[in-house]
Parts: sequence; structure tokens; C-alpha cells
Amino acid sequence: MFDPATQDADRPIFHIKIINGNTCQEMTHSINATAQAVRSHATHLTTVQPKSGPASIECYYDEYLAIPGILEQIVLDTDSDAFILACWGDPGIEAAREITRRPVIGIAEASMYVANMLAAKWSVVTTTHRVRDMVEKTVQKTGLGSRCASVRTTDLAVLETCDRTTTIAALIDMGRRAIEEDGAEALCLGCAGMSGLDQALEAALGVPVIDAVAAAVKMAESLVALGKTTSKQLTYRPPELKPIQGYPDYMQPQGLQK
Amino acid sequence: MFDPATQDADRPIFHIKIINGNTCQEMTHSINATAQAVRSHATHLTTVQPKSGPASIECYYDEYLAIPGILEQIVLDTDSDAFILACWGDPGIEAAREITRRPVIGIAEASMYVANMLAAKWSVVTTTHRVRDMVEKTVQKTGLGSRCASVRTTDLAVLETCDRTTTIAALIDMGRRAIEEDGAEALCLGCAGMSGLDQALEAALGVPVIDAVAAAVKMAESLVALGKTTSKQLTYRPPELKPIQGYPDYMQPQGLQK
Amino acid sequence: MFDPATQDADRPIFHIKIINGNTCQEMTHSINATAQAVRSHATHLTTVQPKSGPASIECYYDEYLAIPGILEQIVLDTDSDAFILACWGDPGIEAAREITRRPVIGIAEASMYVANMLAAKWSVVTTTHRVRDMVEKTVQKTGLGSRCASVRTTDLAVLETCDRTTTIAALIDMGRRAIEEDGAEALCLGCAGMSGLDQALEAALGVPVIDAVAAAVKMAESLVALGKTTSKQLTYRPPELKPIQGYPDYMQPQGLQK
Amino acid sequence: MFDPATQDADRPIFHIKIINGNTCQEMTHSINATAQAVRSHATHLTTVQPKSGPASIECYYDEYLAIPGILEQIVLDTDSDAFILACWGDPGIEAAREITRRPVIGIAEASMYVANMLAAKWSVVTTTHRVRDMVEKTVQKTGLGSRCASVRTTDLAVLETCDRTTTIAALIDMGRRAIEEDGAEALCLGCAGMSGLDQALEAALGVPVIDAVAAAVKMAESLVALGKTTSKQLTYRPPELKPIQGYPDYMQPQGLQK
Amino acid sequence: MFDPATQDADRPIFHIKIINGNTCQEMTHSINATAQAVRSHATHLTTVQPKSGPASIECYYDEYLAIPGILEQIVLDTDSDAFILACWGDPGIEAAREITRRPVIGIAEASMYVANMLAAKWSVVTTTHRVRDMVEKTVQKTGLGSRCASVRTTDLAVLETCDRTTTIAALIDMGRRAIEEDGAEALCLGCAGMSGLDQALEAALGVPVIDAVAAAVKMAESLVALGKTTSKQLTYRPPELKPIQGYPDYMQPQGLQK
Amino acid sequence: MFDPATQDADRPIFHIKIINGNTCQEMTHSINATAQAVRSHATHLTTVQPKSGPASIECYYDEYLAIPGILEQIVLDTDSDAFILACWGDPGIEAAREITRRPVIGIAEASMYVANMLAAKWSVVTTTHRVRDMVEKTVQKTGLGSRCASVRTTDLAVLETCDRTTTIAALIDMGRRAIEEDGAEALCLGCAGMSGLDQALEAALGVPVIDAVAAAVKMAESLVALGKTTSKQLTYRPPELKPIQGYPDYMQPQGLQK
Repeated sequence: MFDPATQDADRPIFHIKIINGNTCQEMTHSINATAQAVRSHATHLTTVQPKSGPASIECYYDEYLAIPGILEQIVLDTDSDAFILACWGDPGIEAAREITRRPVIGIAEASMYVANMLAAKWSVVTTTHRVRDMVEKTVQKTGLGSRCASVRTTDLAVLETCDRTTTIAALIDMGRRAIEEDGAEALCLGCAGMSGLDQALEAALGVPVIDAVAAAVKMAESLVALGKTTSKQLTYRPPELKPIQGYPDYMQPQGLQK
Repeated sequence: MFDPATQDADRPIFHIKIINGNTCQEMTHSINATAQAVRSHATHLTTVQPKSGPASIECYYDEYLAIPGILEQIVLDTDSDAFILACWGDPGIEAAREITRRPVIGIAEASMYVANMLAAKWSVVTTTHRVRDMVEKTVQKTGLGSRCASVRTTDLAVLETCDRTTTIAALIDMGRRAIEEDGAEALCLGCAGMSGLDQALEAALGVPVIDAVAAAVKMAESLVALGKTTSKQLTYRPPELKPIQGYPDYMQPQGLQK
Repeated sequence: MFDPATQDADRPIFHIKIINGNTCQEMTHSINATAQAVRSHATHLTTVQPKSGPASIECYYDEYLAIPGILEQIVLDTDSDAFILACWGDPGIEAAREITRRPVIGIAEASMYVANMLAAKWSVVTTTHRVRDMVEKTVQKTGLGSRCASVRTTDLAVLETCDRTTTIAALIDMGRRAIEEDGAEALCLGCAGMSGLDQALEAALGVPVIDAVAAAVKMAESLVALGKTTSKQLTYRPPELKPIQGYPDYMQPQGLQK
Repeated sequence: MFDPATQDADRPIFHIKIINGNTCQEMTHSINATAQAVRSHATHLTTVQPKSGPASIECYYDEYLAIPGILEQIVLDTDSDAFILACWGDPGIEAAREITRRPVIGIAEASMYVANMLAAKWSVVTTTHRVRDMVEKTVQKTGLGSRCASVRTTDLAVLETCDRTTTIAALIDMGRRAIEEDGAEALCLGCAGMSGLDQALEAALGVPVIDAVAAAVKMAESLVALGKTTSKQLTYRPPELKPIQGYPDYMQPQGLQK
Repeated sequence: MFDPATQDADRPIFHIKIINGNTCQEMTHSINATAQAVRSHATHLTTVQPKSGPASIECYYDEYLAIPGILEQIVLDTDSDAFILACWGDPGIEAAREITRRPVIGIAEASMYVANMLAAKWSVVTTTHRVRDMVEKTVQKTGLGSRCASVRTTDLAVLETCDRTTTIAALIDMGRRAIEEDGAEALCLGCAGMSGLDQALEAALGVPVIDAVAAAVKMAESLVALGKTTSKQLTYRPPELKPIQGYPDYMQPQGLQK
Repeated sequence: MFDPATQDADRPIFHIKIINGNTCQEMTHSINATAQAVRSHATHLTTVQPKSGPASIECYYDEYLAIPGILEQIVLDTDSDAFILACWGDPGIEAAREITRRPVIGIAEASMYVANMLAAKWSVVTTTHRVRDMVEKTVQKTGLGSRCASVRTTDLAVLETCDRTTTIAALIDMGRRAIEEDGAEALCLGCAGMSGLDQALEAALGVPVIDAVAAAVKMAESLVALGKTTSKQLTYRPPELKPIQGYPDYMQPQGLQK
């Protein structure tokens, strides 16, 4: 972990690990590209993907099967100063905060905080219609429901976001409806696969559009620079000791580094 | 699945499977005992536990590592008419509803519906202090926050609920505070491990005390008798087709029975 | 009241009384038909209607003039193990719970619990536009506002629901709008007069449609089977002793069986 | 009804009828005394009580049996320009608004509006503990839950409020707790029987104490002076035509003056 | 201040000062005309405007620059018995309540209380689209969000409301949409500049339309007649002593009359 | 404003201006010290105070008289890339966002976002009891009420926070109560005057304690680095053109740089 004492005073190096929520390598690369472009000079940043889990997260089943692999990326890490969960849904973030003191930031919450500082009301534009309930629950768990004008879904599957032209067109269409019909004054891009599209959308729509990955990188850098660590007071205490069948030793509560 | 046509008209047999959320066999037995005692004559009921997962669920980490094993019990089942998730937290219930049309009932929600029919306000009394956030979120996702007077936690670990004397004493203490200080007029027992204690607590406290497992058995029987199946309109549609790395074939979306 | 000791062990008989909220005999018959069709073999079920009150409940005036007659049906009853209030509005249910320990179930709440177990969001489709406020308040008092996608009203008067063809057409129209525009994934039929239409609507709309009377029968059977009684802790204590002018002796608080 | 054209231009006479919610004549007199003391010179004011109903309203059963008699007082009235429902609970107010265009004001809502103009947060202090749920629902239906610091109940039965010494002592005790523990900065007296005690309590507690009857008189005068009538757009339209069994002709929808 | 002892018993004179929120003299006159028309005979009423501040309040910048001038009108006043803030937004009302014990009424809150007594749900129709957020916050701070069907904005600038024909047409259009699409059953005119238009709109739309200035005059008269003063318990205590740079002596906390 | 093209590629210089909300120079110095200590190497940071306004903000009167001076600091600034409002209350932030496209961050909101990333529930500990309502409204306008466990006030005046020993003792006392009685798992220091005390409190209390000034510096750096600007879609559009009496030319809407 980051120890100011052993670093060059002028240029400390923060290590931030981004964990793509799914197992699609192309998306891992795209997330990494966005993140590297916005990181500060003092940040060393790596993007990984879980060894197990779905190629994309588009329903609760996908999400729940993704979480053990996401958590494994934290359990096995001893170098990073902070973690970013790169799936708009912040899957498993409460558990992630239990297994490490190092800050864990979700790209969903990060994008909402940024939107909240730029606009009176904002909307989330995202992928396929069926994720509406998941997205609404993510807004609720972050606590910002009263500032969210709407959740707007499209016909896009997560992996179809790799087709940038189609994706931009769909997001412009839904973004416009969010602005005109729902009163949105900024937009959160509600999928890690939409990373890198914010500027094209801002040009088309004329409102701030938040790239959730980029937002999370700055939030992670902020928390590390402030020297803050996750509260171990109650909810996020380390897991209680007990055997967890079918999982490797390093995933057992007694094996977790504290 | 239940087919009225092939059953004895006078006595149809409903198959209900209860899935203990954790891998503690003693708790599976205790859940089963409660359930068998309250099932109707027309119900055939089995209680199972996941092959993988924690011995008890006391934090988000436990819960998320339990869910794949819980879902597997549904994926591999072709006989049951309905499923009960026997952990107060209804872990993974949204995903469970995606992978089958057959009703899935959580013991948490079932106990809240029963309490709601008996009292103007009710509280949840449960295990260790750190689960407060999880329990509050369970109440919120069910939608009944405005009827919940409070969540009262104790010093009890989940597996300590096997010590009935200690458990009853702790629940009487906290139940009394919920009644006197928070305005509770009924209590939900917020842990599958507390199953079977409702009558002792009712005798001591004088308010309805809801055994969540028993409540869920009746809710499951109700849904099956009504011939109702889970909505496949949007949120609970079957998972989209995609590979899920690290999981067996029968857990792949294309392998799921619809 | 139900006494397990005096019943045949194999087949206890539960007595459930359904009270139609209005004084329309045709609707009492229709409610009864639905209820008899779904009751379990162990249930003995009768449907009655108040001696006084409106022929249909379509506004607050109707509702308030109906309640004394509804309550009288409970006050004078010594045989039933549970009561069902068969008007979507659960009129007078708080008072009903004060005057008996035996469970009282409203068809509105029952249908919402069932919908809640089948769908992430559901709507209520009901009669004439002017009841919107009443229906919304019923959802709020049950506590499930956050799970309700919308209340959709039609041009139908309550007694026009006897014309099944017109009623089904209107409900399909409004149900479809609830699904497509409001995000409903299941529907509650918001009037006792719509009892018996759920299957036709499910066939037309492809989502679960909840017959509120049927739902309530199963909820009532569940509570009786669980041996639960209404909380007498605070809100639902028996009425305080005092004269109530203009009402018969058996309606006086001192005359009420406890 | 009030017709400006036929009145003396300098001193129009408004007729306001106050309807005590219960049938206790002593309370009717006390309400009337308070009301006469605060009415404006231009107001003619009478206080009546229902011919039927409980001697006091302390539970839902009381409230529901009181409402037909309360409504009758409006149905049979052709002279008044506005009506006041003098029971903190505003019993049957929605129905009252259906059966007349003339304004109907509840003393509960009136007291809350006045408190809202004088204090950032206020509490309701009222009678016996069991009315908490009723009082909270009254605050909710008025819509001011977010401004209400707390509801504080006492050991007082409604009719015990005739003993002023005991009542004042109990209200000072509970009012002080509301101020010190709950953050109340003003108090609503939550029972018509507490009318006339506001000044003694203000002297003892140092915060505004709202006499609900007095507040309602001024609200009623305000609405009449503004020439406003109840909306007949949707919810408060006149009752639909239908027979209402067991009620006299003048209570039938077709008999109601519009 | 009003001292009952020194007044003619038959006709006390209340002094109410209305403070137009902006510095547009034409609007001050129009507000005054409405107010004089509805005041009671016992009320002496003057309408003033701040010496500093914007010609109209259409954004937060306008509002915040208007507030010091509004407060000055209260600070320098020793004669009035109550104050009315005549801008729908009740600008600075919390501060106004700190600097005097005499009641301060906002026209926004007054109009909402009146609407609340006449309709189950009401909407606010107001000026330019950009004020939506301000208007929604005004509804929230009053506490009546759950009774508000919608906020409907128009293309009208505040000062364009002087053109009565255009204004009426725009309000009819938006009022109709509020009624038909949002479920409004009454309308609050959400701008002091719309004062005097209520009757024309009622004639066109058939629902109660609340003139906010008129409503506030009656609320102010009510509070004075009831002898009520602002709570000094906590939030509205006089400002703490401290220098306030750049403001005249009479605006300094130590200079404020208590 | 920051123009990436004209900066040294390796080390762009961001200019951030912090505006102390009050006119106390000692507090301006203390805020500056905290901010300089946490700024990144690429940030140039200045802290100013308004020319007019109160020496401390402890009530609404103080806040409203402070805002014009705060806004003036933005109006006259052409060099900064972002602004921080350094008073926990974020006074005038909506207006500040109207008069510039450059990001404006409030220290209150910044501290809440940081707390939200570290703890399931957090409390605000702050100065004198009378600010409770202001602080609660600040939490509400940010939108994070559901994550806030409580607001805990002390006997401290704002300027008494200069006495660090007393202040720390008071905050430890109230922080402990927030943790033990309210369920807080992190604390926001709810006053700019408490800046610099976070580490002492963390050492004493064992939970994350958020220095609001430090948090805001990192949020401001984040927004600038992301190249984001305030939405001009609706609410935060530039003020409409109109004269504002009593304010200098540069404060007139037509004089504002866009």
C-alpha cells in the first residue's frame, strides 16, 4: 500500500487497480484506455478483469455470478492503494469494502457525484431495457434518487456498445429524450462499455456527459491523496471467521489480509 | 412441475424446495423441521443447502459468495413447483426469478407480509450488529420501509442461534426494546436460524412473532395453488445468452431450462 | 374459532368469512364463486354482504357509509377463523382489526403481496377515474408505494364490471398502457367486481394478473394455518369503553366479544 | 350560502358550522367557546354534534362509526358557508368534500398549517398512546410529514381532557420532551378536547402552541372570504348515483344537494 | 405592534406589510390592488418594494441578490403586525423569521395551504422554464411535495406577466395540461405577477385557482388574529451577535430590535 | 481559464479559488493552510474572503447576507478554473453555478461524497444547536439524506472553533454519540472552521473523519482535470437580463462574463 515515507516527496506514486466487472477483454482494454488518459501523473494504474464471470452484465444473474471473480481480484492484491469497480452497478461493492481497508470506488457512484456537482438534475442513459430495475437500485443505494431525473434504457446489449456509431446514435436519441421530457441537465453514461463516448455526446447534446470510468479514476485518486480508508466501524468490518465451502483458501475469511 | 391434470383431484401434491442460504447442515435440519410442521397435507417439501458457500451469512461477503451455490440449487431442479430462499436477506432472489418461471419466495419478504397483516408497525429482531445495513436494505427492496418500526440487532452470531436459551433471552431483550422504545406491535425473526422460536417469544412478549420459514412455506403454497408464475415481462426475463467463464455448462444461460 | 384439538387431525376445517364491501348481491355471488374455486379442501368459506351500505363503492362517501355495515358482519360473527374484506380499498380494516383477534385480510393488500412476489414493479388497474386518490392511498397505507408502477383507471363504474366483455376490453387497454408506458410487470385487479378475469387478462397481456379475492383467500388460509392472531399491543387493541349513540347494543364497545 | 350581493357591503355575515366529531355535549360547548372567542365580527358561527356516534374518538372503530353522523350534519345543512370538522383526525373529510362545494376544513390540517408558518419543525401532543397510528396517518394525509418532529402521546383518554389540571400537566410533560428530545419548536394540540389550553401551555413551555379549533376558524373564514369552493374536478366530485341501503333518503346520492 | 388593549374593541386594526420581492413598481401596485381587495375591514395594509434587488426574480442569482433588500424592509419596520413575502419562492423567509417575532408569511406557502384545503392534488403553474428547480424546492421546503401533482412552467418571463392576455392564454394552456396529464384538481399561481388572474382562470378551467397574494393576506390576518408569534425556540432565534461587514448599523445583529 | 494547449504538457497548472463564506481572516488562513497541504502539485490555489458579510455564518440571516459578497468573488474572477465555497451549507451555490461555466464545488457536498465512499452511513458533527435545520437542508439539497445517520450539533459558536482544544473535545463527545447512538460509521466535519481537525478525531474515534475543505480541493481538481463545466441547460443558465438595483455594474446580468 501507499506509504508516503518511502516515496519521492515530489512525485508519490499511487497504485490504482481498475476491475472490469465482466470478462470481455475488449472492454477491459477500452476501460484502460479511458483511465490512462485521465489519470494524474502521480498515478500508476492497471486494469484487470475477473478470471470467472459473464462476458457482460445485463441482468441480476450475470451480476451475482460476476461478483466472486471481482472480489478475488481484491483479495489477491497487495499492491494497490485503491480499487475501482468498473461496471455501472458497482457490483459487490459492499463486500469489497469489507475485505480491504483500501478505498473501493464504484464507477456508478463516481459518475453520480460528478453529475451532482454540475447539474440540478441528471439522468442515466444505459443499455438494454431490462436493466432498468438494476440501475434504479444502484441510484437508490448510492442515495441520490432525488437528484436523478430518469433512467433511460436503449435496445443496446452491453457488448453492442463496441459498435460506437450505433451506440452514439442510440445514446443521443435517449439522451435527448431525457433532457426534453424528463428534465435532465446532465447525463451519466450507465455502462463501462460506453467509456470514451462522453465528448461526442456532449458535442451533440450540449449538456455535461459523464464518463463513469474517468470520474472514478479521479475519485480514487482523491481518496488516496486524502489518505482515507474505508470505515471498519460496523458494516464494512472484515468478514467474520467461518469456513466458506467451495472457495480457495485465500478467499476464506481467516485467509484474508486485514 | 405441478400439473393439475395428472394429480389426484382431491389431493394434489405440490413440491416445494427450500434452499437454506448457508452450508450449515444443522440449520438445514432445523429449517426443515419448522417447514414440515406447517406445510399443508398437499405439499411435498424438501430442504437442501448449497454445495458451496459460507457456513453462515453475516456480512455482504458471505452473502455474495453464497449466491452462486443457491442459484445452482434452482438451476439443477426440474421437479419443484416453487422455491424458498431460507436466509433473511433473500439473497440473490432477483437472479433466482430470472432463471425460472416457478415462484421464488424469500423468507424475509414472506415474514414481512405476514407481519403487515397483523400489526400496524413491526420490527425485525436479528443477529449480530453488523448486519443492520443488510437487513435495512432487505426491508427497502421489499418495499415495506414505512411499516417497519425498527431493526434491532443483538450480539448473536448466526451459528450461536443454535443455543436456544441464549438466543431466546437475547431476542426477548431486543424484542422488548423494539416494542417499548420503537413502537413495534409485532416482530419478524430476522434469521433462518431463529426458526422455531416464535411461540416462546410470543409467550414472553405478548405480540405476534413471525417465524420467517413458516411464513414462506404458506406463501409458496399460496402462489402454487393460485397457479401463478414469475413475470417474464422485463426485469426477470431469462438471462441473455453469453458465456459465463468458470461456471459449469448447466449454469450457462444457454443451458438454463426456460 | 378454530380449535385444532377438536378437529380431525388429517383435515382441520378452517372457517373463513368473506365480506363483500358493497350491498350488490350479484357481486357477492361472483366473489364467492372465485373464492370457492381457489380455497383449499380444508377451508369452509362463506361470502356475505353488509345489511347496510352502498350498492358499490366508488368514492369516499360510499366507503365511509359502507364501513359500519362491514364491521357489523365481524361483530356478530363467532364462528369464523378469519375475515376477508372484499373491496379493493380494504375499507375499515384498521377498525376490523380492533374488534377481533382473528386475522382480517384485505383483498387489496393480499393482491399487492402476491404481485410483489412475482414482479419487480406492478400496477393497479381499476374502475372509474375518480377513485385514483382512494386507490393510491390504499397502496400507501399497505406500505408498498415504492413497488407500484402506477394506478390506471378506466371509464368503468363498479357495477359495469358485470359486463365482462366491456370490462375485459377496458382492462386490456389500460393494462397494456401500464406495461408499456409505466413499466408494470404484473397487474393487480383493483376491484372485487373484476374477480374471475385474471386468466383472460393474462392470456391477452402476457404478465401475471392478480385476482385480489383469490389472493386474499390464500393469505387468510395462511394466517389461520400459522395460528396467528392480530396484535393487541397498541393500535389494534379493543375499542375503549364508551357509549356509541345510534348503534345497537352489540356494536357498543362493552358488548364486543374480546 | 353566502351571497355577497345580498349582504351589507360593510359587514358581510359568513356562516360557519363547526361539527364536533363526537357526541359529548360538554366538548361541543368547549369547542364552541374557543371558536366564538376567535371568530371575526363578520362571522356567525354555530357548533353542533352528530346525532349518532361515539362519546369520544380514540380508535379507528370510534372514528368510522362517527363519520356517518358527521356527514349527516353537512348533508342536512343549507345555510352554512363553510364547515369545520372538529376532531384531530379530520374524520371523513374526503367524503365531506364530495357532498358539498362549500369549503370543509379539518382542525388537524388547520393547526398544522399554522404551526408550519411559525416554526421549522413542530410536534403533535395528544391523548392516549393507542392513537399514535391514527395521528401519524392524519399528518401523512395532510402531506406535512417532513415538517413534523414527532407525535407525542399521553395517558389521557379524550374525555379526561375535561380535567384541565391533569391535562395541562400531561401536555407540559410531553411537550417538553417533544421540544428537548425531538426538536419541536412549536406544538399542535392534537385533540379538540384540548381546545382552550394553548395559552397556559405557551406560558409554561415558551413555544407557540396551536389550538386546532381556533386555527380552523381562521382558515374557514379565510376560504369563505376568498370565495373559494372545493374542487369538483375528480376526487371530490359528488357521489355517483346508486342506492345506499339502510340510510335515509336525504343521505342517498340522488338526494344530496349539489 | 398590535396591542389589543389600545384598540377599539369592535374594530381592531391590524397592520400588515406586504413586501414585493422585486423592485418593479408596476408589480408592487398590482400586488397591492389584489391585497386591498381581499383584506378584511380590520386590516390596514401597505405594500412596499425593496430599495435594492432585481426587477424580477427568475433565477437563484436574482433571488439571492433580492434577499438583503427584502430583509431590510422588515428590519426597519416597527409598526406592522405581520409581514408577507410576495414572491412565489418565499425568498429569505427563514432569515425573516429570525429577525422578528411578528409572523412572516410567504405567498407560496399560503397558496399551497389553501389549495390543500380544496383539492386532493394541485399543481403550480408559473413563469419561465428555468425556475422549475426553484419552484420544486419551494414546495419541498414547505413540506407539501406529496400533495403537489406537478410544476408546470411556461415561456413567460416574470415581467411579461404584465401582459394579461398573453399570460392568461399561457396559463390556461399549462393549467389544462396539469389537469389532464398530471392529475391536478386545483392550481396555485406561482408568481406574484399573476395576482388578479385567478377568476379568469377558474372560469376557463373549472378548477379552483389560488391567487397567492390573496391567500397570504388571509393567512397573515389569521395569525395576527390568533395572537401567534414566530417560535424563538431554536431555528428562528435572533441572529447571534457578530459584525456583518458592508451592511449598515441597523442590519447588524446587535442593532436588530428583538 | 485553464487551457491545456498553453500549458506545459507534463505539469498543467490548475487555478482553484477557495472562497471562505465568512469575513473572518483567521478562518481564511486556516482554510488555506488545509487546502495547500492537500492540493496536488499541478494546482495553484488561493483562498479569499468576501468583502462584505458576517464574521461567521450561524443562522439564515448570516447566510443570506453573506451570499452577495461570495458571488462577487466569482463575478470578478477571470483566472480561476474552479471555485470552492468554503462554508458547510454551500451558501448560494445554485447562483454561483448560474454566473460561470467553471465548476463550483461546495465543501458540504464534497465531504458527503467522500463519506459516502467510505461508510454505509455517516453523520455530520457541527457547531451550535440552532444550525440543525440549515445543516439538514444542506444534506437534503445535496440529495444524500438517506445515507446520513444524523446531524449532531454542539455548544460551539463558529468562531469558538479557533480554540482547538475545546473544539476537539466537543467533537469527540458528539462524534461518539453519533457512532454509538445513531449508527454513524464516518463523520463529516460540518464547518469550515473545523478544518485541520480530522486526524485528531480519527485517532480518538476510530472512524473516517472528513475534512470538508480538503475533500472539496480534491473534487475541484477532479472536475477541472476531467474538463467538465457546469450545465447551462436549464437551471444554471446565465441570469436573465434585467437591472438589479443597488448593485455595481459588474454584478448586473448584462455585465457578467458568460
